[in-house]
Amino acid sequence: MPSPTPLRIFVDFAIPPDALALLRAGTPDHELIFPRAPAASVLAQAARDPQFATADVAFGQPDPQAVAEAARLRWIHVSTSGITRYDNPAFRALVSGRGIPVTNSAGVYHEACALHALSFMLAQARHLPEALRARVAGGTPAWHALRAACTPLRGQTVVIVGYGAIGTRLADLLRPFDMQILACRRQARGDESVPVITEAQLAETLATRADHIVNILPDSAATRHFFNRARFAGIKPGAIFYNIGRGTTVDQDALLEALRAERLGAAWLDVTEPEPLPDDHPLWREPHCHITPHVAGGHTHEARTLVRHFLANLERFTQGAPLLDRVM
Amino acid sequence: MPSPTPLRIFVDFAIPPDALALLRAGTPDHELIFPRAPAASVLAQAARDPQFATADVAFGQPDPQAVAEAARLRWIHVSTSGITRYDNPAFRALVSGRGIPVTNSAGVYHEACALHALSFMLAQARHLPEALRARVAGGTPAWHALRAACTPLRGQTVVIVGYGAIGTRLADLLRPFDMQILACRRQARGDESVPVITEAQLAETLATRADHIVNILPDSAATRHFFNRARFAGIKPGAIFYNIGRGTTVDQDALLEALRAERLGAAWLDVTEPEPLPDDHPLWREPHCHITPHVAGGHTHEARTLVRHFLANLERFTQGAPLLDRVM
Repeated sequence: MPSPTPLRIFVDFAIPPDALALLRAGTPDHELIFPRAPAASVLAQAARDPQFATADVAFGQPDPQAVAEAARLRWIHVSTSGITRYDNPAFRALVSGRGIPVTNSAGVYHEACALHALSFMLAQARHLPEALRARVAGGTPAWHALRAACTPLRGQTVVIVGYGAIGTRLADLLRPFDMQILACRRQARGDESVPVITEAQLAETLATRADHIVNILPDSAATRHFFNRARFAGIKPGAIFYNIGRGTTVDQDALLEALRAERLGAAWLDVTEPEPLPDDHPLWREPHCHITPHVAGGHTHEARTLVRHFLANLERFTQGAPLLDRVM
Repeated sequence: MPSPTPLRIFVDFAIPPDALALLRAGTPDHELIFPRAPAASVLAQAARDPQFATADVAFGQPDPQAVAEAARLRWIHVSTSGITRYDNPAFRALVSGRGIPVTNSAGVYHEACALHALSFMLAQARHLPEALRARVAGGTPAWHALRAACTPLRGQTVVIVGYGAIGTRLADLLRPFDMQILACRRQARGDESVPVITEAQLAETLATRADHIVNILPDSAATRHFFNRARFAGIKPGAIFYNIGRGTTVDQDALLEALRAERLGAAWLDVTEPEPLPDDHPLWREPHCHITPHVAGGHTHEARTLVRHFLANLERFTQGAPLLDRVM
């Protein structure tokens, strides 16, 4: 097989040594370029770098302005699931006009994110935070109360708001639970594995059916404070709210009110606005609010998974095959 | 339909008012008898009561000695899954000789127990105890470490030791996880939904394959300290141990040693010996040991489920149909 045309691949996310070795081993025919001031994490944006203008491929979190000036750029692979900084009409028009496909790393994170959401649902159902603190004897009122607080999930209804790869996997994991699973997405594609409701039907569903509301909405102008005061005011009392999407999709003052009014039974948040919340934020002290620090997608050797996913896409790119996780 | 012959049903467990109302409504043709000094919980044994000698049916935790003297007794329905106080040759000979079927309440608890075990597995995989305490910013070393500690369950192996109703349901719930699931039971029945290994094969399996060891063994002379020093010494390093069976099946000193030596990655215990552990017990302070206070079977309206299960069996008993959850 002939070697593919060498590509200049600009890599601008914090890549640990083991994953870098894997990336080097997988790109013998290509040239890797690294910024002079690398970013601190896969979520952070690196400083502008003049080398970027000479890249064929961007793997990381390229500056949207720099993309406009990078005349050779032919493909962008974003190192996160979130694509907030690219998800606007101007950027879409730019890449569409120049025929630059944009892919993201959703396939790297969806399994871990779905497990994280399910761990929240089960920890809530089995009241793990309270149970792990309790040192109570069998037969005592506290013991009976703890047992009685545990909820059978069977027969309950879960509504997954924002139904992409994570939601699909979560629905798969929930299949043996004998729950009603509903997905809410802007447009049903017809290939969903569970019944889909539209945004127009969501209020009615939340008011009458949802025992569990799993928010997996991405950050965008359209989703900002999607879960607002009116939305929380209209839910079935006692429902549990989970957020493994983005913090910006929730009006946190409204969330706090819903918890204090016991309209929400509990909230489990992997994402907040900002992250982390300030130490004096009242959600930290809310007894039924449980917060993890944006770790839902994390997993052992995550950077290696990220590199493998990029390499799989690189092979498709060089062969002209359809790319995985194409978002633009 | 003719009314069935009235039965005298001796009910000797702590039954809350709502469940008692359900029991009364479901037994209009029968007579309920309650001990003068009721037990504190479904697990505790009531004092001997002279009325027991006149009962046709025992629903609760009858005194094994009293059973020998209850000449009219025709059926015992135990109000727990555990049948330790009856599980001995003398008692088995007694009920077998008199043709008294013994049923337990396994069907009441297995769903909640399986959810509890799965909540442990997911809380471990997603490191929830640490993550819920962490207030770390994205990109910091602590944040990377927490993400990297999270384990993908896909491809891992779970061994369920003691494979009855709980284990079967747990295996069902785990089916979409793409894990290897193995059951260990004394005798394979051929109807198990997963591959079965014998006790003789267990050591090899624990040494080479088990990433997760779920102990659901009941309490009996044969299972006492089943997980002992030798067993823990032979496991695959880093395996996670879960106990939702009975505390007596584990040598807790050996468990503590295995945790301290980091041979075990973590332990999740719903049962201990004694319960609760004394406040100064070292397992409370072990960082990777997580303990809930024997609540795995608990769920909302548990006593009502218990009564419904008994009533379903009562109908079978009066009709001469095979009883549910028959254990002797």
